[in-house]
Amino acid sequence: MTITSFPSSTAAGLFAARASGYKPSPVREVFDISMQPGMISLAGGNPDLSVLQLDALADTAAELVRTQGLDALQYGGGGGTRELQELICAVMAAEGNPALPANVQVTAGSQMALELLVKLFCDPGDVILAEGPTYVGAISVFDGLQADVVHVPMDDDGLIPGELERKISELAAVGKRVKLLYTIPNFHNPSGVTLSAGRRADVVRICREAGLAIIEDNPYGMLSFDGLYLPSLHQLDPENVFYLGSFSKIFSPGVRVGWAVVPDDVRRQLQLASEATTICPSVLSQMLVQEYLSQTDWRQTLASAGDLYRDRCEATMTALADFMPAGTTWTVPGGGFFTWVTLPEGISGEDVMYRAIGHKVVFVPGSAFYSDGAGDNQLRIAFSFETPERLREGVRRLGLATAESIQGATA
Amino acid sequence: MTITSFPSSTAAGLFAARASGYKPSPVREVFDISMQPGMISLAGGNPDLSVLQLDALADTAAELVRTQGLDALQYGGGGGTRELQELICAVMAAEGNPALPANVQVTAGSQMALELLVKLFCDPGDVILAEGPTYVGAISVFDGLQADVVHVPMDDDGLIPGELERKISELAAVGKRVKLLYTIPNFHNPSGVTLSAGRRADVVRICREAGLAIIEDNPYGMLSFDGLYLPSLHQLDPENVFYLGSFSKIFSPGVRVGWAVVPDDVRRQLQLASEATTICPSVLSQMLVQEYLSQTDWRQTLASAGDLYRDRCEATMTALADFMPAGTTWTVPGGGFFTWVTLPEGISGEDVMYRAIGHKVVFVPGSAFYSDGAGDNQLRIAFSFETPERLREGVRRLGLATAESIQGATA
Repeated sequence: MTITSFPSSTAAGLFAARASGYKPSPVREVFDISMQPGMISLAGGNPDLSVLQLDALADTAAELVRTQGLDALQYGGGGGTRELQELICAVMAAEGNPALPANVQVTAGSQMALELLVKLFCDPGDVILAEGPTYVGAISVFDGLQADVVHVPMDDDGLIPGELERKISELAAVGKRVKLLYTIPNFHNPSGVTLSAGRRADVVRICREAGLAIIEDNPYGMLSFDGLYLPSLHQLDPENVFYLGSFSKIFSPGVRVGWAVVPDDVRRQLQLASEATTICPSVLSQMLVQEYLSQTDWRQTLASAGDLYRDRCEATMTALADFMPAGTTWTVPGGGFFTWVTLPEGISGEDVMYRAIGHKVVFVPGSAFYSDGAGDNQLRIAFSFETPERLREGVRRLGLATAESIQGATA
Repeated sequence: MTITSFPSSTAAGLFAARASGYKPSPVREVFDISMQPGMISLAGGNPDLSVLQLDALADTAAELVRTQGLDALQYGGGGGTRELQELICAVMAAEGNPALPANVQVTAGSQMALELLVKLFCDPGDVILAEGPTYVGAISVFDGLQADVVHVPMDDDGLIPGELERKISELAAVGKRVKLLYTIPNFHNPSGVTLSAGRRADVVRICREAGLAIIEDNPYGMLSFDGLYLPSLHQLDPENVFYLGSFSKIFSPGVRVGWAVVPDDVRRQLQLASEATTICPSVLSQMLVQEYLSQTDWRQTLASAGDLYRDRCEATMTALADFMPAGTTWTVPGGGFFTWVTLPEGISGEDVMYRAIGHKVVFVPGSAFYSDGAGDNQLRIAFSFETPERLREGVRRLGLATAESIQGATA
């Protein structure tokens, strides 16, 4: 048997229009760089899994396969297991969000739930509003499904309602059909800011009045540093808000289990679209999550994780103050994984990134989080995965790279 | 906290055109019926997992979480783990199919790989050719992505090359753009037939000359009753054939691990589209499959499974001969999970199904496997999951239901 490489193909000439929408993600590309020896990574939003009790989880996995293997390894229902749907509602209740199991669709990560909802709601050319900046993986979904992304400015209190109204009016005036607002109200990725309580009611009202639905993406909500939670948009208007949740940041991304909560009259189409994509969510993964939620003190583990991330955030804040050149500003997160850094006027995040890699630190430049080329003098720092000591050293190196870039710009 | 149901929503008025393409799958609907007590299910294509050594697999899962949990539970590469890509090539080699790890994209089941390829290659209105009948889950993908399905007739040697040429000419004559042939050459779902060796070269040549690519879906190829394998279409023309493989039938559907092998110049777009859908395949599932393939005698397990399915197929064939009314015909599979039954002229598979459910046996009526309303007097029998005794009893009940339907038609 000879094994040949396939250097060229006739097939590549057949690509559909939407194929060109899938562009390389800068986050995935720096993923490879972050694996280099000695590199400090401020790039990927990986959770620190050291809080998990791996020995106990190993026993749980063994017991699961041994006693329920014929179910765990078989096909399951397309919407997810009933047990997990119920436990997801308990997790949401612990954050103050009411939901019913029948409205829960389990997916292979909440990324997939987002993809399905955009597939169901956006024809090519439809507009999705999103914070500027926004989650890079959401931009991939919107681009791939040929939806147009229009950014809405945010400040330290999150999305600005007046700007949201203005964008909706502007788009209506030029005949564009706005279908969705995609928003991450809690500990926003990449900006780290949280939509204030006062603004939540405004955002919900504006969208309802304008006839667009909201996708509320909430992977970080339970990673609050002070243990307090604001009411979700979903809670304020469950008929018009699709809620996305994830176990990736509060348990494990490797199991790929997320979910959407949608109104009754969207639920069936969402499940059919999900079945067309993956038939059913992994039963093994779902049952492992079920065991984790029902057999362990997961809220205590989550509290430990919150303490860990808070310490890392504080170390990052201190290091930014100590090492970044004058004229640099950054957000002060109340939870989650990220802070958003604005470099001095005229300094490019990409230029700093190339210099920073030379100093053995890597991060994602700000332009990755916009679909319109903005964010050039910004960058995202993830403080979730490195120790406080390494975060401090990483920011010190970032400060050096930034100073070099300033020197280069003024030379 | 009050929990409310969401009886109506403003959001449902915003559905995109493609949303109406997602229709309920008859296979999934009879899934619920097949759970009723006393029901014999000839419906779902579930593998029999009793061949697996669950105790050993439980130990493997525990060891995996205990010693490699920080990797298994974390995010992984978007294309799949390098180890699994290599093992997939070894699995394909065992069936006589050469492939390189760099050309392998791992997905959450091969259903997802199919969805991604159709997304990348078909604009709305593009035509996909598929056997008539074809896999019901493929029809969901095509409908959801607004591709038009045109069926190509098959006989006991599989897809008929002359009919393929004729359909391509007819579609060209009316200005339709044909992008893909979707085919299941081995132990076809639902028909149970295999594309003959002689026809394989013809099919590959016809598609290449007509400028369309082939998606070769091969979940059942290794479940050959005589242990012999025909050359894959991918092997005959690797530059123009996208190959889909799955662990669902040869190991476990519950882990949701499948793959695609594509040419170099399609590989990158496929991974980007995959990342936009699920970020990465489940690392835990991938590593469990790796351990299964590298630590156990999986080919021996597969041979045992093949023996099991062959016995069940034979029991089904005997029962069909013993119990079905005159004028009924069926295919004789050389492997896989299914046989395809053609009822006497004028008898409807759906009518027989409703009567059969009363007799406590369920199957999928033939019309589910066509996008154009054909197949009304046919039905699919899955022999993979029930014991030979229950298969015989199920077919006996099916015979009663069919006789009743004939009586009803002539009354």
